[in-house]
Amino acid sequence: MPINDIIQFDPDLAGAIFDELALATRVGRGIVRDSYGAGEQAAHDILRRRAVAIGLECAVDAIGNLTMTLPGLDRAAPRIIIGSHLDSVPQGGNFDGAAGVVAGLCALSALRSGGFVPRCDIAVMGIRAEESAWFDIAYVGSAGALGLLDPDCLSVARADTGLTLEATLAAQGFDPSAIRERRHLIEPNSIRAYLELHIEQGPTLVNEGLPVAVVTGIRGCKRFRNARCVGAYAHSGAVARPYRRDAVAATVALLHQMEAVWLREEAAGADLVLTSGEFYTDATMHGPSKIAGETRFVLDIRSTSDTTMNIVAAEARDAAERIGRDYRVSFDLGTTSDSPPALMDTRLRAKIMGLLDAPFEMASGAGHDAAVFAQMGIPSAMIFIRNENGSHNPDEAMTLDDFGVATQTLISLLVDFPI
Amino acid sequence: MPINDIIQFDPDLAGAIFDELALATRVGRGIVRDSYGAGEQAAHDILRRRAVAIGLECAVDAIGNLTMTLPGLDRAAPRIIIGSHLDSVPQGGNFDGAAGVVAGLCALSALRSGGFVPRCDIAVMGIRAEESAWFDIAYVGSAGALGLLDPDCLSVARADTGLTLEATLAAQGFDPSAIRERRHLIEPNSIRAYLELHIEQGPTLVNEGLPVAVVTGIRGCKRFRNARCVGAYAHSGAVARPYRRDAVAATVALLHQMEAVWLREEAAGADLVLTSGEFYTDATMHGPSKIAGETRFVLDIRSTSDTTMNIVAAEARDAAERIGRDYRVSFDLGTTSDSPPALMDTRLRAKIMGLLDAPFEMASGAGHDAAVFAQMGIPSAMIFIRNENGSHNPDEAMTLDDFGVATQTLISLLVDFPI
Repeated sequence: MPINDIIQFDPDLAGAIFDELALATRVGRGIVRDSYGAGEQAAHDILRRRAVAIGLECAVDAIGNLTMTLPGLDRAAPRIIIGSHLDSVPQGGNFDGAAGVVAGLCALSALRSGGFVPRCDIAVMGIRAEESAWFDIAYVGSAGALGLLDPDCLSVARADTGLTLEATLAAQGFDPSAIRERRHLIEPNSIRAYLELHIEQGPTLVNEGLPVAVVTGIRGCKRFRNARCVGAYAHSGAVARPYRRDAVAATVALLHQMEAVWLREEAAGADLVLTSGEFYTDATMHGPSKIAGETRFVLDIRSTSDTTMNIVAAEARDAAERIGRDYRVSFDLGTTSDSPPALMDTRLRAKIMGLLDAPFEMASGAGHDAAVFAQMGIPSAMIFIRNENGSHNPDEAMTLDDFGVATQTLISLLVDFPI
Repeated sequence: MPINDIIQFDPDLAGAIFDELALATRVGRGIVRDSYGAGEQAAHDILRRRAVAIGLECAVDAIGNLTMTLPGLDRAAPRIIIGSHLDSVPQGGNFDGAAGVVAGLCALSALRSGGFVPRCDIAVMGIRAEESAWFDIAYVGSAGALGLLDPDCLSVARADTGLTLEATLAAQGFDPSAIRERRHLIEPNSIRAYLELHIEQGPTLVNEGLPVAVVTGIRGCKRFRNARCVGAYAHSGAVARPYRRDAVAATVALLHQMEAVWLREEAAGADLVLTSGEFYTDATMHGPSKIAGETRFVLDIRSTSDTTMNIVAAEARDAAERIGRDYRVSFDLGTTSDSPPALMDTRLRAKIMGLLDAPFEMASGAGHDAAVFAQMGIPSAMIFIRNENGSHNPDEAMTLDDFGVATQTLISLLVDFPI
């Protein structure tokens, strides 16, 4: 009997943990697992108790990340980490983040029940504070553990309490000096690979009718966060077209031009999404018969390719220059805030694709802790799980069946690890 | 010696009246002649004193409109009215409205000094409350005098004081029952023609290098005042193009399409301006990585032709339907608020054009009291005077030279009136 047939995902265990998490952290309709707060801690406590019951070795690092380890044959060998975050956005759903940690725990439980002893340690990592909704910092737990956080971030205040990250860490019994001294709580070369399961935050798998996808890479982002167009306010009836300095018309022309750039890049096979999620005239200047003298807007460029993002950003600047002249306005796109793309490991991708009944690959648009590990040169892989209604809301809907497909794939990967 | 050569505009008189108006009604940098308030009344008082000094007959109607009449040979014959308004927007300029009344007064002063007795009475009318910035009602003074106001408007409150139009009229010693009973304070068939001089509120004459223009008509307006696009909020990185329900992208597509309609109509010779002066995403839903699930916007369609406005509004609805399908969003353009266009009298236009050294015609985009008279079937004409920096602001800049060209043209029209 092949080993994979006796090492089986247990849906009852997974269901019980998800129910326990929801019960402990639901506030009104939504889930609240606040970073370094009571909600996140409750999730850590639940996962830790489950890990102890399974017989895993538990440890908490200086900034609160929880590792739950199934010992391998060679305990000195670089280990495999299966990680995701246990915090949520305010009024989020039960699966964003937690699903990846529960999947890791279920996989290790299955390996242990099946009597499988891996070559190296396999650790499930409950990562702290991935959601920047609380502290406006990307990847506190994973980047902090790898010594990558700028110590200045300790003075960032939590959006709701106003307490700094430093004060919040200290109040929870953790050690801010780890971040201040950029201590490596994990050594990158002690990690053989990083694996993360996560619900898909878009509708692609729902629309494709597939339970899981292999992630090609995590899109980077090049964002004109504070773009502005300045024209001149005037009477909408009284100024003929050739004399207008209409900021809305010019901004519409720019965004329409950028949509054409997107369609062109997409047709050429590039990975790209372009979004203007904020676009507004000045409400204090609104009036029924006015030409708008100013707009503010965001232009968010995302791709798994730095080259594509650079091309599109340069085209946005060129178009703003040209359209600004044509419409007698001036654009100030400002600087971009950039986060680099992270590509997933090609061998791991290929191996996981080979394990799927319906192999399907897609880019991740949202950021994940896997990006931090991948950017450190650690071979990383992600599996997306079908999820209805998007994420970051109380209506996240992942089925246990789809979760089972993903976790069983993870189990199969672990018992025949390719690298 | 032709009579027109001895009936000359007096720039000193005009300059003195404009200075007196500015002195009495400047508040900080701008002019405040509040409708049915102290500022408007101050202007009425100044004009009336000047009219008495010139020897004109003065009368105030039940809702406060001031008429200053030069008697004609046949006092029973339908009279010519030269009108404009004496109120201003808050922090407006010295010329919007007042210039037309001062021009009338200067013209009658010149006729009287030159010993010219007209065939019929010529009345200068200082019209009340044209600016809807105070009471959100169009044309209180002129429409009220012609019995056209909906009596419900008496309960509209002034934006700053909160007092209703009814209470405000009564407090100023005027008679709200004239509006309640839709009394005709002027009989339309007692008016031979209505003439109005007004500063241009756009930059056309500045750009054309011309002192005055003859107005072809006053554009009507068909305005989607509360248009809305509803899509779905989602993560900007995580949703691929075919699944997006991006309200900003769809609204940009709609407005871009409508600009193409404008260019097409303009190329075909139609009079048209299209403006979206308000366009905004919901600030409470803003976030750095969001696809916008909703926009609100205005689409303001103006033309001297009802047909053109109807065509463009129908195309906007069709485009919203089609683009809504393409972008998986739903547009609700709502109903339009409509004001009809008003065409100026062709014989008066032709006569005035013949009096100009550099004949030039243009549409008026903004509304004027002349629209009310024209819509009643009264032959009406308007002359625009070059003005820098637009109107409704403290920087209105009309020169006395240009004002002189306009007023001398008015004098020439009056001494040889074509209809």
